[in-house]
Amino acid sequence: MWFLRINMKDRTHQLTEVPEKYKKLAGRSLTSNLIADEVPPLAHPLGPNNKLVFSPGFVTGTSAPSSSRISVGGKSPLTGGIKESNAGTPWAWKLGRMRIKALIVEGQPEDKGEFWGLVIGLDKETGQPTLEWFDATEFTGQDAYDVYPMVFKKFEGRRVSVCGIGMASEHAYGNAGVIFEDMSQNPSRFAGRGGLGSVMGSKGLKFILLDDAGAPGVEIADKELFDEGRKKLAAALNEHAITKPKGGLNTYGTAVLVNILNEAGGLPTRNFSRGRFENAAKIAGEAIFDGVKERLGEERYNHACSPGCIIRCSNTWYRKDKSEHVSCVEYESDWAFGANLEIDDLDTISELVKLCNGYGLDTIETGVTLGVAMEAGVLPFGDGEAAIEMVHKMGKGEPIGRILGSGTGTAGKILGVVRTPAVKGQGMPAYEPRAVKGIGITYATSTMGADHTAGYTIAPEILAVMDDLDPLSKEGKIALSRAFQATTAFIDTSGHCLFIAFAILDIASGYQGMIDEVNGVLGTKWTADDILELGTEVLRVERKFNEAAGIGKQADRIPEFMHTEPLPPHNVVFEIDEETLDKVYGEL
Amino acid sequence: MWFLRINMKDRTHQLTEVPEKYKKLAGRSLTSNLIADEVPPLAHPLGPNNKLVFSPGFVTGTSAPSSSRISVGGKSPLTGGIKESNAGTPWAWKLGRMRIKALIVEGQPEDKGEFWGLVIGLDKETGQPTLEWFDATEFTGQDAYDVYPMVFKKFEGRRVSVCGIGMASEHAYGNAGVIFEDMSQNPSRFAGRGGLGSVMGSKGLKFILLDDAGAPGVEIADKELFDEGRKKLAAALNEHAITKPKGGLNTYGTAVLVNILNEAGGLPTRNFSRGRFENAAKIAGEAIFDGVKERLGEERYNHACSPGCIIRCSNTWYRKDKSEHVSCVEYESDWAFGANLEIDDLDTISELVKLCNGYGLDTIETGVTLGVAMEAGVLPFGDGEAAIEMVHKMGKGEPIGRILGSGTGTAGKILGVVRTPAVKGQGMPAYEPRAVKGIGITYATSTMGADHTAGYTIAPEILAVMDDLDPLSKEGKIALSRAFQATTAFIDTSGHCLFIAFAILDIASGYQGMIDEVNGVLGTKWTADDILELGTEVLRVERKFNEAAGIGKQADRIPEFMHTEPLPPHNVVFEIDEETLDKVYGEL
Repeated sequence: MWFLRINMKDRTHQLTEVPEKYKKLAGRSLTSNLIADEVPPLAHPLGPNNKLVFSPGFVTGTSAPSSSRISVGGKSPLTGGIKESNAGTPWAWKLGRMRIKALIVEGQPEDKGEFWGLVIGLDKETGQPTLEWFDATEFTGQDAYDVYPMVFKKFEGRRVSVCGIGMASEHAYGNAGVIFEDMSQNPSRFAGRGGLGSVMGSKGLKFILLDDAGAPGVEIADKELFDEGRKKLAAALNEHAITKPKGGLNTYGTAVLVNILNEAGGLPTRNFSRGRFENAAKIAGEAIFDGVKERLGEERYNHACSPGCIIRCSNTWYRKDKSEHVSCVEYESDWAFGANLEIDDLDTISELVKLCNGYGLDTIETGVTLGVAMEAGVLPFGDGEAAIEMVHKMGKGEPIGRILGSGTGTAGKILGVVRTPAVKGQGMPAYEPRAVKGIGITYATSTMGADHTAGYTIAPEILAVMDDLDPLSKEGKIALSRAFQATTAFIDTSGHCLFIAFAILDIASGYQGMIDEVNGVLGTKWTADDILELGTEVLRVERKFNEAAGIGKQADRIPEFMHTEPLPPHNVVFEIDEETLDKVYGEL
Repeated sequence: MWFLRINMKDRTHQLTEVPEKYKKLAGRSLTSNLIADEVPPLAHPLGPNNKLVFSPGFVTGTSAPSSSRISVGGKSPLTGGIKESNAGTPWAWKLGRMRIKALIVEGQPEDKGEFWGLVIGLDKETGQPTLEWFDATEFTGQDAYDVYPMVFKKFEGRRVSVCGIGMASEHAYGNAGVIFEDMSQNPSRFAGRGGLGSVMGSKGLKFILLDDAGAPGVEIADKELFDEGRKKLAAALNEHAITKPKGGLNTYGTAVLVNILNEAGGLPTRNFSRGRFENAAKIAGEAIFDGVKERLGEERYNHACSPGCIIRCSNTWYRKDKSEHVSCVEYESDWAFGANLEIDDLDTISELVKLCNGYGLDTIETGVTLGVAMEAGVLPFGDGEAAIEMVHKMGKGEPIGRILGSGTGTAGKILGVVRTPAVKGQGMPAYEPRAVKGIGITYATSTMGADHTAGYTIAPEILAVMDDLDPLSKEGKIALSRAFQATTAFIDTSGHCLFIAFAILDIASGYQGMIDEVNGVLGTKWTADDILELGTEVLRVERKFNEAAGIGKQADRIPEFMHTEPLPPHNVVFEIDEETLDKVYGEL
């Protein structure tokens, strides 16, 4: 298992065995510990002292189901705090199989505007990682959908996977993701949140290609235990209504949530001014499924974003002429460009998603920021064409595009918008804190800024997974959010997709299966308590970094307007006070 | 003495006697205490829960020399923390004479885009403040140099003074000042820093006019002591080389500092990349004096910005045709548009100052932000015409103008500039922290963000006032900055111009004179220790507010690049570490 350090100042590198203290860490726990250990908390996110760390999870690269996740960590240009953003992609699977536990990108070129590509392969004799560099300047300033095929063509005949950045990162936006390929070699899988693409861009690194020819695969200490675990987990995923084949996610994709959240009055609409969108049904997962069926003349179930996924939740939207428009229209993107902007047309929404992918923009941050721009009167609510034009301006680096590309918090500040739905500068995802209190607590207190994936209490609050809680009640939600945040930190460490949570929270053997897999790989004997403690420790490390970076408990707040402005249809405010919010970390 | 509260939600008001707990406060000590007591620290700066407080100092409105200062306080849209910004203007003098100790503007109209004018007069019978409102919509969207004469004309025959906001505030910029009139009724005296103009704008308040007809003047408890004090202070001001008639400030204005700082290697040049500007002499106070003499054919000494000033440091620049171009070209503005942008032409610099005044922009923030934009390649260093065009874009609210109008920290973030000279988001004034350590400590730790007036250690470090310290040495500078910050908080409370410091720090009887004046007005028996404690307590109150707003010691930092990048000509970095900086407030 390797630590591969790359210094972009002079494109030198250093290859070492994994140091002892990091051996029992991976994914998010490793990226966050490395950032906390090596990046000065007050370093400029785009300066030479920030680092960008890639780490696959414990089981990433194995046959464990739904586990091809890559964690990307750094100090965020968006929040100013620590950031882990993860994606499901073949690239993750390969990095795991190449036994590269951490790829650490350091330094930056003295000459701004240099862009390099790196190919990491394996030496046939020694099995050690090898590095090849290429000048990537010719690939800058272009749409990733044009660039990715060019890159694959350049390395034709080699089975490479591509991680890259788009124009948004070349512009150093707070809203610029790291782009990974999907199973069709499209630039559509993102470590989207927090502007880590711009950290990569600030280091003059345009691409990291993996050529896993000769990769030995993940070392597994106890193969029997691992196999037992993956079977248990697979059985749970295949059984649960949400994750099973032709189940909720496989049929309708994550956008299955549109109608559910709308029904609950928690679908943020018109820049978080109400909780129901009258045209929700037109953009719901059901409408995507039916629309595809109508256009193609046959039913299409969804596909996997990465090798070995059972859940297979990635949809594809097609044009009227049956050509592929974009994959994937996730719930978050669908909502961000749909209900949030009062746009009810799936073709427009798909085009916005595709533009974001092509420019390297995070769809959530883009949609939420557009909502703020609409609130400011920069463009009208409901105007899809204006939204498309605006995303082009973002991609092209025009001044108004730069404002929006800076992310929700900053754009709200520049445009003088009081109703700016952001925490720690990061735009809020598709769940209304006023209508779903637990997720509001996660948004407020997560080390990541407003992030639904940091502690997805939607499961018991809306989906009746694990429990069936009243989303409007604040009762017990502090402990709930804390437990979910810690558990999530472990799932993000294991290398599994967060969506396994639906199955493992309801099916105990599935939960044990996840633990068995990890113990199998590591040769450990961790219990459920141990992994919760590991997750909790990740949160402590992240929190400590943030505090040293000046992001303390006063930043763990829901925006003022949500405390004072009642949200229809339930006419509720976010009534959880500061002292209560502080208990999430105060009792960690 | 009155507290006048105005609620802009419905334009109602409330007039009360000064509450007991505020009776021994005024100016900055009063604005900061009121904000700390009444504004929730996490309130949105542009939302209905922020307040804007105007308060004259203890002796403002009396015959005390150089004391027509008005403090303006609120939660800053620029820094996110507490803010006091003050200006010298006839308006301050009138508010003092009308015995309005605090004017507190609260709430905001529900309908965005409403703009109102308010005339405060005095009832002839009762002597109580009276209010008249007028629709100010017709005055929006225009240059303040055009608008001010229209307002004076509208109230022709009444001796009104005008406080107002410009287009920058209508756009809600973080860099928007509150504009006050000078002695020639021009919109040139600014409470410039921290975006308080936008707080006023967010409340739909375009103008506050004072009609002091029938004003009783300031109540003085011990007239004899007061007179003794003002004579001592006047004598000191008339004696000291910097403040005396035809002394440094009266002859060359504040721009007398250009050559001095350049000589010391502490004149920030080309966005803080070196400490000397080769063409400094062309923009120095001496060049202004000589240039005016050449153009007018006679020597011109400077004038007062407000009633009762002995120092009289305000210059005027004239065009070649002898017409007045602008007053006043302060050192800070001269530097911000001059050395900082590598512009060496006084006509260009004067035009930039005039545009800022007209649009309602803070000249310091504008110049520092333009330096960052030049660093980003938005426009070239040294290009005066491009700078002028860019300030027009700021005033007009064009997207690139909005980016720059958001202030240095935010603009640096949007433009992806690592070398952003800002603390707490506020752009650094005209003294290089690396070359003058004490002022660096003030920039880092002041509750106000980077602010030279918060603790002007330049006096002993550069001007040999009070002491003659090595600016490059950090020895004793923590205690120095702390003492200066506390003393300044008292001077800002007394109502005097900070420039009395030159005389009173060197001439003990002058210092005592200031204290005697205040004791005379209040009937107190405060000692030098007492006033230092009062100043210190102001800092504590401000600091506590900031901490509750999420701005703690981690925000008390000089930007990373100044710690790592040696500054020519002395090739020094800012080497004071975090623990040391924390001692400023840690030992308060």
